[in-house]
Amino acid sequence: MSNPLNFEVNATEGAARAALLTTRRGVIETPVFMPVGTAGTVKGIRFEELESPELDARIILSNTYHLWLRPGIETIKACGGLHNFIGWNRAMLTDSGGFQVWSLGALRKITEAGTEFRSHIDGSLCFLSPEISMEVQAALNAEIAMAFDECAPGEATHDEARQSMELTLRWARRSKAAFDVAQIVNLRSAGDSERGSSLIVREGLEEADRMSALPARQALFGIIQGASHLDLRRESLDRTVAIDFDGYAIGGLSVGEEKGVMMEVIEDLVPRMPADKPRYLMGVGTPEDLIEAAARGVDMFDCVLPTRNGRNGQAFTSRGKLNIKNARYALDQQPLDENCACSVCNRHTRAFIRHLYQSGEMLASILLTHHNLAFFLDTMKGVRQAIRSDQFAKFRREFTEQMHCGLES
Amino acid sequence: MSNPLNFEVNATEGAARAALLTTRRGVIETPVFMPVGTAGTVKGIRFEELESPELDARIILSNTYHLWLRPGIETIKACGGLHNFIGWNRAMLTDSGGFQVWSLGALRKITEAGTEFRSHIDGSLCFLSPEISMEVQAALNAEIAMAFDECAPGEATHDEARQSMELTLRWARRSKAAFDVAQIVNLRSAGDSERGSSLIVREGLEEADRMSALPARQALFGIIQGASHLDLRRESLDRTVAIDFDGYAIGGLSVGEEKGVMMEVIEDLVPRMPADKPRYLMGVGTPEDLIEAAARGVDMFDCVLPTRNGRNGQAFTSRGKLNIKNARYALDQQPLDENCACSVCNRHTRAFIRHLYQSGEMLASILLTHHNLAFFLDTMKGVRQAIRSDQFAKFRREFTEQMHCGLES
Repeated sequence: MSNPLNFEVNATEGAARAALLTTRRGVIETPVFMPVGTAGTVKGIRFEELESPELDARIILSNTYHLWLRPGIETIKACGGLHNFIGWNRAMLTDSGGFQVWSLGALRKITEAGTEFRSHIDGSLCFLSPEISMEVQAALNAEIAMAFDECAPGEATHDEARQSMELTLRWARRSKAAFDVAQIVNLRSAGDSERGSSLIVREGLEEADRMSALPARQALFGIIQGASHLDLRRESLDRTVAIDFDGYAIGGLSVGEEKGVMMEVIEDLVPRMPADKPRYLMGVGTPEDLIEAAARGVDMFDCVLPTRNGRNGQAFTSRGKLNIKNARYALDQQPLDENCACSVCNRHTRAFIRHLYQSGEMLASILLTHHNLAFFLDTMKGVRQAIRSDQFAKFRREFTEQMHCGLES
Repeated sequence: MSNPLNFEVNATEGAARAALLTTRRGVIETPVFMPVGTAGTVKGIRFEELESPELDARIILSNTYHLWLRPGIETIKACGGLHNFIGWNRAMLTDSGGFQVWSLGALRKITEAGTEFRSHIDGSLCFLSPEISMEVQAALNAEIAMAFDECAPGEATHDEARQSMELTLRWARRSKAAFDVAQIVNLRSAGDSERGSSLIVREGLEEADRMSALPARQALFGIIQGASHLDLRRESLDRTVAIDFDGYAIGGLSVGEEKGVMMEVIEDLVPRMPADKPRYLMGVGTPEDLIEAAARGVDMFDCVLPTRNGRNGQAFTSRGKLNIKNARYALDQQPLDENCACSVCNRHTRAFIRHLYQSGEMLASILLTHHNLAFFLDTMKGVRQAIRSDQFAKFRREFTEQMHCGLES
């Protein structure tokens, strides 16, 4: 089948690259940060805000595991698929559920067939496999689906990591096969009606032209594993590429490995990844991580940091992290970040947001989430613009320097 | 001192009236519903939404009791007053704290001097009196402050209600005296700088003209008590008017009295209230209550129902209440209210909002709060338009009929 994504690199600076990733539901400029929408919502923010020119999130991530357990696939199907159910008409990526189940720790049991686990909602026994994950992801019908993988812990030995990697490769093949079948079923039941309806008219004819050339099927990304072992990572890459996916992700980083290992793996691996396909670093990371990985040629990111830490009272700023609980902000008349142009920083002071947080007011989470997402998305916009104008080295240096004269250090 | 509010009735139909209430911070069309912003935030909604043409809340209520305890007056003063602290430049009304303390029940002790109570935050012993309430409200510096009153329970006997009413009258005189002193202090410290800065330019020159004619001081409303005893209510009204306030409120309704008593009191009392001053029914009520009270000549309302019930999963609709928890909505593709044009009803289905509620997602509260406020504010807009076009009787009848063919009955 022809590629359901169009990926055109249009600027590079060193290993860093800026590209246009065209999907059935809009064009995404990369490097891109994907806000995480766990259960059909990016926690604490309305879709109108995500779509606003201020944030302009072109793609969000949804968690297969959560949606599969609640409300369940039958509900989502009956409501016309995930986009229709939640009211989001831009692009989406679904994870495979593998990592979420892996995170359950003692509650899960991994076999060749798949993973048995207890639901975090009601404790019932569930089973997830490559085939089930593909079926669920096909029902969710995001623009990008992920192969079902197994994640080795950061400190896995070479033997453990190899076993896990081999299992992931066998599951990758099963994922691909099940995915291809599911696509045929999806396309038959949907006809071509799906395709035309998702064109975003306001983006203009050029975008519509790009999109209309795409087949209606979903894209499927393969996931590279191998823990911190570079030889395994390279092998995982080669053998995953041999299966042939629409894009490639690096999984199993930022999962407890020693500091420095992540960039070492990225630096070694990314240049070996196919240049004509999107490269996605899963579950990473801080703004500094994003910039460093983009510098090494990564195109896509997702992370819960801006949303989760926002709800816990932490703001990301151009001068480092800010903990709004800190008493030093009780009378502080400055915005969260004096260099930020978001609607929160335009209107509200640290003193007010601290008061909201201390009072347990929902608005604290809403404002911190909004600002943090604005900061992450704006940082990536800066990265893209810098690469396009050949100023990325300068951008990266200045960003890092400013970050390190931390607010709270 | 001259009146800090300009109140012009510009249409009537029966006892119902539509008016323009001009404050230092914008013109308010009445009958008006004031969203409740307990601790410096209307829970679950951003000020940008409240200001949007969709909701267009011209005035919100803030709770003196909550803000006094946290973050405290010194913080709010240091942050340039309440408007500046929270980032809201439209009109505000502060309650006196009396009702909130009264609601603490066993935690409070009432004496002639004032009310002793234990803070709901840390259990510390606090004392609120007419003088302290006026000092705090002057520091908060809302456009409208309320006299410090004592609320008798709905089932109070004649004797109990008289005692409470007499105390409220003595406190009303002390409130007025303390308020007048606090205004002089406020105006001296602020100069006239406060006044010009609060003009909302986008509302146009006409509004600016109206506002520039007003003195910079706050307005103070007196509160009529007397429980369900009409003779006491009338006496309370006459003796409160004799003290001379900028507006008059009916307190102590919707506090446990028998059904029917509230409208009986309103029907008897409102026609006797000064016609040239705003009439404010405190803490009431459902959309039906608002329309029935407006029909009897009430101008202003506040109530936590749209926000609090929204957080608890209840939507107000043109066909009655809807409990989103109800399993019947699991696959329901309709908006919360098919007759509602709000951004939530334009985008999201009952099935999705139910899923969010069941999943404990913050967005459930955000969406239900938004819709409920839109419904309350839009209902009041309908009331005003109907009165102006002499269609209020029809509007009221149709609204009530539609309400009664309930969604869930």
